[in-house]
Amino acid sequence: MDAVAAVDLGGTHMRIALVSREGDILARTGLPTLPLQGPASALERMAQGIQHISRGTGVRPRGVGLSSAGPIHYPEGTLTHPPNLPGWDGVALASALAHHIALPVWADNDANLAALGEHTYGIAQEWDTFAFIIWGTGIGGGLMVEGRLVRGAHGWSGEVGHIVVDACGPPCGCGGQGCVEALAAGPAIARVARARFSPHLFPVLAHIVQGEPQRITPEALEEADLLGERPAGAFLEEASRWLGMALASLANTLDVQGIVIGGGVSHALHRALGPLRRVLERHLIGGLKGKVPILPSVLGDDAGLLGAARLAWEHLEGKGLPSGR
Amino acid sequence: MDAVAAVDLGGTHMRIALVSREGDILARTGLPTLPLQGPASALERMAQGIQHISRGTGVRPRGVGLSSAGPIHYPEGTLTHPPNLPGWDGVALASALAHHIALPVWADNDANLAALGEHTYGIAQEWDTFAFIIWGTGIGGGLMVEGRLVRGAHGWSGEVGHIVVDACGPPCGCGGQGCVEALAAGPAIARVARARFSPHLFPVLAHIVQGEPQRITPEALEEADLLGERPAGAFLEEASRWLGMALASLANTLDVQGIVIGGGVSHALHRALGPLRRVLERHLIGGLKGKVPILPSVLGDDAGLLGAARLAWEHLEGKGLPSGR
Repeated sequence: MDAVAAVDLGGTHMRIALVSREGDILARTGLPTLPLQGPASALERMAQGIQHISRGTGVRPRGVGLSSAGPIHYPEGTLTHPPNLPGWDGVALASALAHHIALPVWADNDANLAALGEHTYGIAQEWDTFAFIIWGTGIGGGLMVEGRLVRGAHGWSGEVGHIVVDACGPPCGCGGQGCVEALAAGPAIARVARARFSPHLFPVLAHIVQGEPQRITPEALEEADLLGERPAGAFLEEASRWLGMALASLANTLDVQGIVIGGGVSHALHRALGPLRRVLERHLIGGLKGKVPILPSVLGDDAGLLGAARLAWEHLEGKGLPSGR
Repeated sequence: MDAVAAVDLGGTHMRIALVSREGDILARTGLPTLPLQGPASALERMAQGIQHISRGTGVRPRGVGLSSAGPIHYPEGTLTHPPNLPGWDGVALASALAHHIALPVWADNDANLAALGEHTYGIAQEWDTFAFIIWGTGIGGGLMVEGRLVRGAHGWSGEVGHIVVDACGPPCGCGGQGCVEALAAGPAIARVARARFSPHLFPVLAHIVQGEPQRITPEALEEADLLGERPAGAFLEEASRWLGMALASLANTLDVQGIVIGGGVSHALHRALGPLRRVLERHLIGGLKGKVPILPSVLGDDAGLLGAARLAWEHLEGKGLPSGR
């Protein structure tokens, strides 16, 4: 059976799978990244993980697709000060992994590959011009235009978390101010909720976080909301309105067929999707009103992994690559 | 000599030229649009204008490229409620003109074609991923990604005037709120300046507008500024800061090599470019700081006309079209 290996490299964990051309996951495993031990050690473990599931299934992969968060350049996968892989600056993931495993390797960032994954195997199969938004600890995006991933002039496209939504907003980790990431990413949601928290006003949330505001996370807010404490969910709604405004700017600029949202905070979409859509509609230009569906990711945590597999398949089959760069 | 005809259709005037493959304008003429007489009359005049300069030069064009403002879909040029061509809704400009002149016709919107013009013959020849911004009565944009014009899923891409920069900003003509167009386009600049005008504070401006605040325009502010009345120029600076913020959101999203600015208000860039660049830099993500030049259009009013010529050449030569759509 024909397969490729796909790797989703995170700061604490790496996920490895063998994937068929049709997107079926034939086998999978997970290993710790241990980034402080350095890239050589991690990449050797990665190669061993691939060999392990290859032996277990008797399927030898024809190539490897690698997805990683953070500033990473396609196709060699060179990392630039990746915040979750300290000390890995300048590592070219693709050639470095190829050094440990006698297979061709292609690498790209997680948001681009999540977009490719949803386009090939997920909810965006009917779309060729759309955005995939990662709504989590940060806010990132992968853009596809007419079937091609947009990688940008310097490999930095899709930094939708740094769409400015409030000129007088809070400072952002990027050095700017009022970016949607500073108002709507997980840490921003938690920060606002902690500042407004009191056990009297939020008894369910207080129980969940055992009375300690620093334990408040978007997940805790979601849980309290699901247990009936609606004011806890209001923090998620507030964030979703900022995100809706940013996505309207994105849609008005690129005229996408739709937007897929994944990432950790997107689990709260059962509550947040309504307000997000209302703000989006309010800010869409006339010609686009009612025409930009917002859909939750269906591949979830596997979107990047399956996109990485697809990247390898596209290269192996010499098809129109997802981008000229 | 080989040439194509290029037409730039505006609400009051149409500009017509014969253009060589190299972008030389061999002959040109201008005619009134008289939009209220209806499209058939205007298109007949357009055809006569083309025939007139064709006879005058002895050069028969091989095809026609047509640029028009407003909601217009490539390549048939169907207009959707064009604000400056009342009563032309639904007219397919390309086939309608072809009906009057036995030549193939391709049509697209002015911002897209201005981008194509600057890319082929102007200041953006070294760039294949960039934006052309029309800063005038409205704020519009043409986007090129990897050498291809981005037309969007519904033909609405590049509506950068409706990037939201202020959640609590003024209402916009689009029905939204806080769009950069509502804060930085020509009418917004004039509105703010009129509200703050007094002959005592702005004696030079008062002289230029003969004491009548309703005569204040961006051009009048620019003139007063050039004559030494710096507070008049401050209105242009204020607008340029809003525009800089929107362009940072655009650059962070698309990672462009640079941005070209044309349109009526862009004449004020001698004063506005510095503040615009400072705000842009402040809001660019780290990896893009210092890497997104903002340049004034060099083709000026001819950018769309030359882009229209290029559109015709690309079709005639069967090259990679500027877009798959």
